[in-house]
Amino acid sequence: MPLKVDSIDEGLGTKDINIRSLSSSSHCQTQNTPYIHKVGVPPRQKLFKEFTSIVKETFFADDPLRSFKDQSKSRKFVLGIQAIFPILEWGRYYNLTKFRGDIIAGLTIASLCIPQDIGYAKLANLKPQYGLYSSFVPPLVYAFMGSSRDIAIGPVAVVSLLLGTLLQNEIDPLTHQAEYLRLTFTATFFAGITQATLGIFRLGFVIDFLSHAAIVGFMGGAAITIGLQQLKGFLGIQNFTRKTDIISVMRSVFSAAHHGWNWQTIVIGASFLSFLLFAKYLGKRNKKLFWVSAIAPLISVILSTFFVYITHAEKQGVQIVNHIAKGINPSSVDKIYFSGQYLLKGFRIGVVAGLIALTEATAIGRTFAAMKDYQLDGNKEMVALGAMNVVGSMTSCYVTTGSFSRSAVNYMAGCQTAVSNIVMSLVVFLTLEFLTPLFKYTPNAILAAIIISAVVGLIDIQAAILIFKIDKFDFIACMGAFFGVVFVSIEIGLLIAALISFAKIFLQVIRPRTAILGKIPRTAVYRNIQQYPDATQVPGVLIIRVDSAIYFSNSNYIKERILRWLTDEQEQLKAACQQRIQFLIVEMSPVTDIDTSGIIALEELYRSLQKRDIQLVLANPGPVVMHKLHSSDFASTIGEDKIFLTVADAVSTCSPKLAEEV
Amino acid sequence: MPLKVDSIDEGLGTKDINIRSLSSSSHCQTQNTPYIHKVGVPPRQKLFKEFTSIVKETFFADDPLRSFKDQSKSRKFVLGIQAIFPILEWGRYYNLTKFRGDIIAGLTIASLCIPQDIGYAKLANLKPQYGLYSSFVPPLVYAFMGSSRDIAIGPVAVVSLLLGTLLQNEIDPLTHQAEYLRLTFTATFFAGITQATLGIFRLGFVIDFLSHAAIVGFMGGAAITIGLQQLKGFLGIQNFTRKTDIISVMRSVFSAAHHGWNWQTIVIGASFLSFLLFAKYLGKRNKKLFWVSAIAPLISVILSTFFVYITHAEKQGVQIVNHIAKGINPSSVDKIYFSGQYLLKGFRIGVVAGLIALTEATAIGRTFAAMKDYQLDGNKEMVALGAMNVVGSMTSCYVTTGSFSRSAVNYMAGCQTAVSNIVMSLVVFLTLEFLTPLFKYTPNAILAAIIISAVVGLIDIQAAILIFKIDKFDFIACMGAFFGVVFVSIEIGLLIAALISFAKIFLQVIRPRTAILGKIPRTAVYRNIQQYPDATQVPGVLIIRVDSAIYFSNSNYIKERILRWLTDEQEQLKAACQQRIQFLIVEMSPVTDIDTSGIIALEELYRSLQKRDIQLVLANPGPVVMHKLHSSDFASTIGEDKIFLTVADAVSTCSPKLAEEV
Repeated sequence: MPLKVDSIDEGLGTKDINIRSLSSSSHCQTQNTPYIHKVGVPPRQKLFKEFTSIVKETFFADDPLRSFKDQSKSRKFVLGIQAIFPILEWGRYYNLTKFRGDIIAGLTIASLCIPQDIGYAKLANLKPQYGLYSSFVPPLVYAFMGSSRDIAIGPVAVVSLLLGTLLQNEIDPLTHQAEYLRLTFTATFFAGITQATLGIFRLGFVIDFLSHAAIVGFMGGAAITIGLQQLKGFLGIQNFTRKTDIISVMRSVFSAAHHGWNWQTIVIGASFLSFLLFAKYLGKRNKKLFWVSAIAPLISVILSTFFVYITHAEKQGVQIVNHIAKGINPSSVDKIYFSGQYLLKGFRIGVVAGLIALTEATAIGRTFAAMKDYQLDGNKEMVALGAMNVVGSMTSCYVTTGSFSRSAVNYMAGCQTAVSNIVMSLVVFLTLEFLTPLFKYTPNAILAAIIISAVVGLIDIQAAILIFKIDKFDFIACMGAFFGVVFVSIEIGLLIAALISFAKIFLQVIRPRTAILGKIPRTAVYRNIQQYPDATQVPGVLIIRVDSAIYFSNSNYIKERILRWLTDEQEQLKAACQQRIQFLIVEMSPVTDIDTSGIIALEELYRSLQKRDIQLVLANPGPVVMHKLHSSDFASTIGEDKIFLTVADAVSTCSPKLAEEV
Repeated sequence: MPLKVDSIDEGLGTKDINIRSLSSSSHCQTQNTPYIHKVGVPPRQKLFKEFTSIVKETFFADDPLRSFKDQSKSRKFVLGIQAIFPILEWGRYYNLTKFRGDIIAGLTIASLCIPQDIGYAKLANLKPQYGLYSSFVPPLVYAFMGSSRDIAIGPVAVVSLLLGTLLQNEIDPLTHQAEYLRLTFTATFFAGITQATLGIFRLGFVIDFLSHAAIVGFMGGAAITIGLQQLKGFLGIQNFTRKTDIISVMRSVFSAAHHGWNWQTIVIGASFLSFLLFAKYLGKRNKKLFWVSAIAPLISVILSTFFVYITHAEKQGVQIVNHIAKGINPSSVDKIYFSGQYLLKGFRIGVVAGLIALTEATAIGRTFAAMKDYQLDGNKEMVALGAMNVVGSMTSCYVTTGSFSRSAVNYMAGCQTAVSNIVMSLVVFLTLEFLTPLFKYTPNAILAAIIISAVVGLIDIQAAILIFKIDKFDFIACMGAFFGVVFVSIEIGLLIAALISFAKIFLQVIRPRTAILGKIPRTAVYRNIQQYPDATQVPGVLIIRVDSAIYFSNSNYIKERILRWLTDEQEQLKAACQQRIQFLIVEMSPVTDIDTSGIIALEELYRSLQKRDIQLVLANPGPVVMHKLHSSDFASTIGEDKIFLTVADAVSTCSPKLAEEV
């Protein structure tokens, strides 16, 4: 609406300007200025072309169809199939050397994942076999569809805890076991659907909205929370809180101190935890010994199980795993809720768990792709991960993703392709078929120790320090997420992380920076006078750079900020009895786009400046901006000759006029 | 997490680089390059100072405390009181000349507002007197607290319709009249609280999130919807749909065509509508005759009432206003729901209605402030509007705000200060006390005609055309809001407008532009080669400008987009058998900020380039970026001598080296 009422006044305004700009332009032309290049006005783009280019940059920024260009139809079909199942492509170049690397890596991560799986299933309030199931089917699916060579697929600590917390808010896992299990598969199904949908519609960028800093804080907090939960198994406490915040857990621990702690459990747990941490330390100090830390968990399990078996420590109150169902994954298609009140709940939980799982997998995928310098199509990866979870939800698995710790081991053990996942999957298969009875006497304390030693790696203090050094706002997000998880709950931490990340985006959008420029001595370059204290301002001219696209969300702020710079400057000059400002040059280089609100703001700025007898001059508007300045007629309002290629050009045209008038 | 795994590799990476940068820096130094100014590293800001400056720019961007600076305590107190009640400041300079302008303007808008109020109350499903109440108390409150000189306060069409629609979704206004009224006051109360809260906490920028284009579309759609609703009164239809979408309304209208239309009503309505539209046209063509259009509604009311009174047309089925309660606003403090199920509902409706009312008032305030060139503190305005609605909710008023049409009339009638609102308020007071019985025979058709002629002005086709010309994305938002309101409902239209506005912000944040630069002939200036087709690229060097701050939301995209530019360029060069690219210069002028994710992306970019044997060079990083490049040690990773003040400097340092190697 404002536009309309404006136009009442504009009729007068424009006339006024034309006289003004004519007189000043005649001034300019009489001067013998150096060569001044005109500001380019790009040819008008067709509406359709403009639209497709936006769509392309938004959804197909990585140009996924590049390889399809100029190919025959049948070749395109083959490429399409290969795009869905990358194994068909890299499988053709597979050879024995690669297989050697993969089999060693596969066996290593298998030895690591089996005890972890049993422990992680507990975090999700599930029986141990569901952890193993989840390391059998999903890695196989991923191996066929995924394109990361280093990721190790399976249940992970953070997602297990998150899923467990969210699920038990809806259904009690002890009293309503069957429903709880059904809701788990429902959530897993929708987690997969969410992931695949994002991938198919190429909306993968949504996970970029969780900033690196927020992830570091969230992961650290989750690691501590998971570690605290292990105190139950580690100390042999029977009655343990079901909340996850540090205060509830600590209250549980200390109220059980007098009668609930079991010293045999503590001795077993502590000794093996020391062993695990020492192995980890060894592996870190000497990269060649990484395998020590990789197989330490399995060794601990074997030794402690054997020890309990011969001493019958379970009769002294040492809790053991007991029964793990034998045999591979039963079908769970009929257990997913496709109607009723739990459908929506499962969907909601699935979306959250799916996104977090995606964030973890994408971070891993990108990291290793960058290290080995191969391309990874993020959206294609999401389809693979989604398909893997959908298939998983139908075969009694819960949400799986890439594991930070196991992927690093996989990489260091020399994996070459996703075949290492297949090897791991086969080992898990054999375990399920034949070895589950052997875990009967495994003490829970060992599983707790293994989980503690695994999640220690998620606490990345160095990253937090680096974040503190680089960006304080990021650090607030990091700490917000961390303390939210530790002191309230994992969902609240996640919410805080997301909110702070969003707040930062909004801040960037609504309050862009502006700077006053000055001339750097011995150059024709104009730069921020705060950064370059030796830069000098040109008398009678104020040069302001606007550091953002001018959109409705900031147009009003930018206008008012420029006027505030001007007022501040005028007051200073007045105090110092210096020449008054006659030209305001807006350096538009960083202004990549402008919308209707932005044009209105410029018009208002122009009119305000006119009332103060100051000429508005623009320097270096980009192609899009130039186009819009013309289509809105603002270019002719201020005068084409007030738009320059560089600040230097603008100043050289203005300053002769200044000299004349003084 | 990625940081950590990265660091495994980085150890090797860094060593590699150091050798590299040493050898290349020695190259650079042996050349006799022209004077090259160093890139400024600003002094490290204190954490606290940095934080306060962010807070200041975000919440106190307009520097509202400027006038308080260097004042005595008692003076500060006086200024503080004046800030809350601006009337105390401008009232001291009030004089007879100003009063002359105000009294004429006040009488004019009073004559306009009385019939409108009666009609608008109907849109909100309220009895006519509530419209008049709302033009009595709120304008008085605003006159004391507001700082706009031109705004005319009262009920407005769009907010009335919005409020009516939202309220009747909760309570039926016919069967539960008392509860409906109570919920109305509850919503009004919370609308005021919302507005005042935003103002007090200086969060006024939230209303900037509804873009100008979305408002134009929303207003146009609302105008059409309101016009369609008037067909009920205009055609004298008894059974009318309570939905607002065009299809339901049209079905209502045509199903009533055979028996439900009242020809007497239509004749009265149509003749007066023609008169009103003609008066409007006259006022528009000749600005001096604006008063004709301003008093035409009152004249219509008087004439038609008199006509019905003498002909007793109400016995022929012409619907009339009938009874309007006499006397001024009764108290409604005890009617506001402060507990129970309606508290939350009233709150929700109040927030939405309050925000829309705020958007309208702010747009008006800004427009007229810009036209008369006075400053308006948006946040202070919000406090005034909020206070006015809170007081209103306690004195039987519903949500009021600034009216577009009446404010324009106020301005043209020569109002000088908010005293014109006081004059209007007094006229409404007299009307309530003495004149309400006179409206008994006023036909509803006249009110319908007045509303139609008022909302016609909200349809701003020229603004829509301008939006189409300037920005296609804005136009989509505009049309989305328009069709959403017209074809679905006013809430859905609002939601669409907000969503499209947000989508635009996100698009800006996640997909910033990048451009390849070339040297403009006869200058040392490097510009986008798309905008300047005569710009030439330097052989062996690729110059890419990144047009946005590098944040977590776009860091990965930017990295991959740069690599894609590089790949495209390399393929072209290969096809043309030209010199291969050895330097990639990233022009960072528009990169105003970078966060941890951005630094990581730069590191990954640097490593990818190394593998391709290309040297990364940065040109003109700003103060914040420079600071973070140093604190993260990235500056020393790529080498301080790879960071230049300008692209020209970077090229002049790189190209001798190229010449050497060729």
